[in-house]
Amino acid sequence: MTDAAPRSPSPSRAKLADVAALAGVSVGTASKALNGSGRMRPETRQRVLDAVEALGFRPNQHAQSLHTGRSWTVGLMTTDGIGRFSTPVLLGAEDALGAGKISVLLCDTRGDSIREQHHLRNLVDRRVDGIIVTGRRTDPRPPLKGIEPIPTVYALSPSTDPADISVVSDDRGGARLAVEHLLATGRTRIAHVTGPEHHAAARDRARHAVEVLERSSLGLATGRVHYGEWSEAWGRRAADAVLRTAPDTDAFFCGNDQIARGVADALRERGLDVPGEIAVVGYDNWDTMALASRPPLTTIDMDLTEIGRIAALKLLEAIDSGPVPGVHTVACRLVVREST
Amino acid sequence: MTDAAPRSPSPSRAKLADVAALAGVSVGTASKALNGSGRMRPETRQRVLDAVEALGFRPNQHAQSLHTGRSWTVGLMTTDGIGRFSTPVLLGAEDALGAGKISVLLCDTRGDSIREQHHLRNLVDRRVDGIIVTGRRTDPRPPLKGIEPIPTVYALSPSTDPADISVVSDDRGGARLAVEHLLATGRTRIAHVTGPEHHAAARDRARHAVEVLERSSLGLATGRVHYGEWSEAWGRRAADAVLRTAPDTDAFFCGNDQIARGVADALRERGLDVPGEIAVVGYDNWDTMALASRPPLTTIDMDLTEIGRIAALKLLEAIDSGPVPGVHTVACRLVVREST
Repeated sequence: MTDAAPRSPSPSRAKLADVAALAGVSVGTASKALNGSGRMRPETRQRVLDAVEALGFRPNQHAQSLHTGRSWTVGLMTTDGIGRFSTPVLLGAEDALGAGKISVLLCDTRGDSIREQHHLRNLVDRRVDGIIVTGRRTDPRPPLKGIEPIPTVYALSPSTDPADISVVSDDRGGARLAVEHLLATGRTRIAHVTGPEHHAAARDRARHAVEVLERSSLGLATGRVHYGEWSEAWGRRAADAVLRTAPDTDAFFCGNDQIARGVADALRERGLDVPGEIAVVGYDNWDTMALASRPPLTTIDMDLTEIGRIAALKLLEAIDSGPVPGVHTVACRLVVREST
Repeated sequence: MTDAAPRSPSPSRAKLADVAALAGVSVGTASKALNGSGRMRPETRQRVLDAVEALGFRPNQHAQSLHTGRSWTVGLMTTDGIGRFSTPVLLGAEDALGAGKISVLLCDTRGDSIREQHHLRNLVDRRVDGIIVTGRRTDPRPPLKGIEPIPTVYALSPSTDPADISVVSDDRGGARLAVEHLLATGRTRIAHVTGPEHHAAARDRARHAVEVLERSSLGLATGRVHYGEWSEAWGRRAADAVLRTAPDTDAFFCGNDQIARGVADALRERGLDVPGEIAVVGYDNWDTMALASRPPLTTIDMDLTEIGRIAALKLLEAIDSGPVPGVHTVACRLVVREST
């Protein structure tokens, strides 16, 4: 390849005509044998397959796509620049799709609607068989426009349209696992420190944590949820505020691992023992944070890779058998480390 | 789409025959007008383009690929599961390629040679115009096999074959920026704590740091490089070891931000003021680490997104005009924060 002119096939690449010649059949027959279409004697098909093997022939997928109407390609669209949350979802999906012969076209929209439209047009032009959309937030998002009838699955960030297929994390189950673990280890004065109230992840986990406490006739240690930022600095500040209000707090359930790490640092620097005096639970199982924390954090793992994998499987089902609308929930896991 | 049978075009999707009919030309002429091939009167071509516009016709890219021999698709292969280092490289490449009409096929090999071969066969079958390979390490890697003559560019992890095209970070320049910044702010007893000696990134940055010190007739504060792990825990342990050997150390240059954060924590917990008594410089500008550190870290930014962007541009050049072997180096930036 030394110029922009049409590329000729490499000399070493066998053509369908070579296969046909070796098998002693017409090019049309060779093509039908390879596509599994048309009627022919089994011996004829076998002669073609033997010739394919002998010549190391590899069919041109673009020609195959024209024939089958399928591109064996799926668009993976991420709206947040491939961050910490979308990456494992993408990997889970890529793993499930790539195990077969399906390739993944990566589209990063960076939350920009013009980029999203550009990528969507491109995916439509390339006749993708389906699209997976993911983002960093668990808040519902409006469905993609102009892609009918391409099957689409929304992963992590569900679609606002109930006629779509979405795969989401079980925030209710995650909050329940965290609070029940603290209750089971004898904690009863539990504070909740989390991210911004306008994030569904913060609101949902807080609401479900309170539900679990109420079932044990308990409430939050400080009588309220401490909404703030998803940062260590907020965790440190909030720990101080909680202990001013409720000095007998014996556990913190935090909305993410960064907040939990900040809480653990603030407690250590006040001379409080974690978990001896106060237990700390995070959320996300982000290894960099959870393992570097002193002590390492007990946390909730959303299994984002599994969310990606299930999204891929639901997409393959939709491509093969038509879409079945609905929201699929992937369970969280409790990962116990030294902070509880 | 409700079954696996060949998908019929959506009723709303105009066909080339519709374009030809509206323009009053044959399908062959319409095709030539769209592909820019064949001789015809400018008015004829314009009539076809007007019909395309009027009908909202979008050409089938698979048919186009058969015609032009180009798939307008590039493989992006990452060998480390899309980690913290490969992600910005992928994004930079995707941005540079996606701005045009080139799509990106994502392949994640997870360091597994069988997965790599599977993905490569798939990329060859799909007639990709080129391949970008990236990984998490700066150590040279063996070139991909069996892809001739597909142009390939190695990003971040260079190819061991000098006949290949590689785009790498300027580790020498990065180490120089860090040490010269410390010297410029009056530090002369500088310790170096870094990752494992068998990583090129650790060895190269250490060697270049020593070179810069020697040019000022200085050596490392402890007389040696402290090789260990890329972790906060190692940074904390190493800070203690350095201060035992050389209590008058006035600065730490660290091989990554996690080590630097560990050093900063250990110094604070010993009651030492950063940067008042001891300055700390990290490497990577990994925002989660550098900003959460107390104080926030001065660090070296490798500009991984730029490495991806340059790799994409070199690949486009190679596709259009033939590959020009060589190693391209992307400069680092010094990001000054409160730790110096």
